[in-house]
Amino acid sequence: MAKANAFYAQSGGVTAVINASACGVIETARKHTDQMGKLYAGRHGILGALTEDLIDTSRESTADIRALRHTPSGAFGSARYKLKGLDENRAEYERLIEVFKAHNIRYFFYNGGGDSQDTALKVSQIGVQLGYPIICVGVPKTVDNDLPLTDCCPGFGSVAKYVATSIREASFDVASMARTSTKVFVLEVMGRHAGWITAACGLAAEKPGQAPHILLFPEIPFKQDKFLARVEATVKKEGYCVVGVSEGLQNEKGEFLADSGLRDAFGHAQLGGVAPVIAQLVRHHLGYKYHWAVADYLQRAARHIASKTDVAQAYAMGKAAVQFALKGHNAVMPIVVRVSNQPYKWKVGMVNLCDVANREKKLPRDFITEDGYGITAKCRRYLSPLIAGEDYPPFKRGLPDYVVLKNVAVTKKLKTRFNV
Amino acid sequence: MAKANAFYAQSGGVTAVINASACGVIETARKHTDQMGKLYAGRHGILGALTEDLIDTSRESTADIRALRHTPSGAFGSARYKLKGLDENRAEYERLIEVFKAHNIRYFFYNGGGDSQDTALKVSQIGVQLGYPIICVGVPKTVDNDLPLTDCCPGFGSVAKYVATSIREASFDVASMARTSTKVFVLEVMGRHAGWITAACGLAAEKPGQAPHILLFPEIPFKQDKFLARVEATVKKEGYCVVGVSEGLQNEKGEFLADSGLRDAFGHAQLGGVAPVIAQLVRHHLGYKYHWAVADYLQRAARHIASKTDVAQAYAMGKAAVQFALKGHNAVMPIVVRVSNQPYKWKVGMVNLCDVANREKKLPRDFITEDGYGITAKCRRYLSPLIAGEDYPPFKRGLPDYVVLKNVAVTKKLKTRFNV
Repeated sequence: MAKANAFYAQSGGVTAVINASACGVIETARKHTDQMGKLYAGRHGILGALTEDLIDTSRESTADIRALRHTPSGAFGSARYKLKGLDENRAEYERLIEVFKAHNIRYFFYNGGGDSQDTALKVSQIGVQLGYPIICVGVPKTVDNDLPLTDCCPGFGSVAKYVATSIREASFDVASMARTSTKVFVLEVMGRHAGWITAACGLAAEKPGQAPHILLFPEIPFKQDKFLARVEATVKKEGYCVVGVSEGLQNEKGEFLADSGLRDAFGHAQLGGVAPVIAQLVRHHLGYKYHWAVADYLQRAARHIASKTDVAQAYAMGKAAVQFALKGHNAVMPIVVRVSNQPYKWKVGMVNLCDVANREKKLPRDFITEDGYGITAKCRRYLSPLIAGEDYPPFKRGLPDYVVLKNVAVTKKLKTRFNV
Repeated sequence: MAKANAFYAQSGGVTAVINASACGVIETARKHTDQMGKLYAGRHGILGALTEDLIDTSRESTADIRALRHTPSGAFGSARYKLKGLDENRAEYERLIEVFKAHNIRYFFYNGGGDSQDTALKVSQIGVQLGYPIICVGVPKTVDNDLPLTDCCPGFGSVAKYVATSIREASFDVASMARTSTKVFVLEVMGRHAGWITAACGLAAEKPGQAPHILLFPEIPFKQDKFLARVEATVKKEGYCVVGVSEGLQNEKGEFLADSGLRDAFGHAQLGGVAPVIAQLVRHHLGYKYHWAVADYLQRAARHIASKTDVAQAYAMGKAAVQFALKGHNAVMPIVVRVSNQPYKWKVGMVNLCDVANREKKLPRDFITEDGYGITAKCRRYLSPLIAGEDYPPFKRGLPDYVVLKNVAVTKKLKTRFNV
């Protein structure tokens, strides 16, 4: 019998280091060709499996696979596509098994957040039901840092380093200009429902009075009067005020301050534009000159300022996923386990997918200061090691030299098409 | 007679490398204490001179002055404050001379853009008129790259590197997501009237089809139908479309697409928010899912990804300014002279301030492709060397370690106050 092949797919919003996980998966698989056959990647995530659009990763050079480690985004294409429940759309799961069977795929690696781990779990279950057992291993990824059980999520540390660095740099700028010009600066960051990225902005303020002066978390309902009073007091004391705000900031009625009304495939509101709302509020009520920035994709794609810790963990998760699979572990996910804070030490752990799926880890209340506008020492101890170390990509002609893979398609074996 | 002292001030919007120029000025002055006495800096630029709020730079350690080279923003504070004409407000100029006389200041170094060079020229002229000759040397600075005569402006190369890097990274992200999610990404960049920074976004596209696909220059009036047709064609061909847009984009009537209505001290409109306008247009007419980012201060403060060429030139301009002054050159400014493109070589030149003041260098039409949406090979040859090389700052606890100076005030000598 031919050696069992493997399938790897990237899912959901991409990060600066999801390709480092891909690199870990592929390099590790290549070391075990005695046990594992070909490693196929899904073109645009799970859609690649459903439509039998598989990429043959063996056609990529060693150097190009190595370069994934320093290349942001999803090299095989990702997808915002959530499989429905087994009862609602059994056909999708059956199609997956059909494709896997046709290509002798017995390993399924799914690199994504909570929704994706739920899918990986279901694939494992349907495989058993249909008499085609398949080993399913999740690979954690999300800039939102909201997966449970793991100490942190690959992708988050690099966003954290980017936002903390950027808000520090912008704060130096505002401090220079405040005497005659801009007094208030607002940076909007990602993190739909969990304030982890907002909290990371706070790392830039290492001493009392340092910027950012105010953080607006999605967990803390926005109170306009209290906020404006704090801005005014800060400008009077420090000469300027820097604010980090989550895209998911809500008022006391639970309404998003900037809801564009769009929804993504998972049914989440597509947010953006709360920074100008906050800035206009300040201008209107306090009259201060302002500037605002919305980092958007820049923050999660900023591989040039990735955290070395994050890159190492992303790679380790990919590597461990293959090792777990080869040992026969099914429906599991590797995690980061924190061993100690000072010095920071971590190791790879393993959890069951059924304990991961569809659970969101919010920022604990004791990570936020009592007034709701800053981070506590406990939060800082947690976050600080995650942004440690630089891991610069190579540069060519002044620009980061990122790899674009050949992504050669595997010849289709099925006659049937599947519309998604 | 006591040795003549010197005065240095930072003016206008700060950059990632204006402190590298300050470092060049101070380190060079410290090497010539036989000819030059103390070097004072103006707290908040020219306001420091008008209000006799001088900073004694000799109180800073060698290491801290050295650290200015890798610290963004204006370490002494900058100011958006334009002196009026000699006829309109002679009192301001007389006050400057009064302060300079009280502190035996015979050298005036003014680090800024076109408006500031005009001020430096006037100070030189009024000095002669009032019988207190003072040597005035400009130090070029502006992210807008719009000063005449110099090949480029310190500050621009680092913004150029930041926007080209950022739009490349975001483009990789969008390419990953486009199949099921975001198809159009819009990055708004600075450059009020000149499209130099917008052009720099184009450096990220090195091969046909690569992002960014469309650049919207302030020099090219925005035509909605033509733009939307290009977006649609690009999405159909490439699967996604990335747009770089200048904050100063105007329609065919010469109206800014996003004018917030505010004006700065120089009378320029304070812009921001054209990216969401463009993104909404795309959504409304073509229905594509979009994301947008506004880099704002992040781009000009991003010392972590500064151009090595830019840092070297910024330092060289500061150094040359002091050298020129010591040789007795008055009312002049050092410039960057390009010697060759391949290999890129440059040297320091010198021009008269009267030829610099109040002249804006726009992006030449032959730097923009005929269709108005891209950069030509000629533009690329000009821009490419300016972003060459990395010059990373030191990091501590995962964050760039920027210096904050002590900025010790010089004891006032005048009894009179001056209100600005």
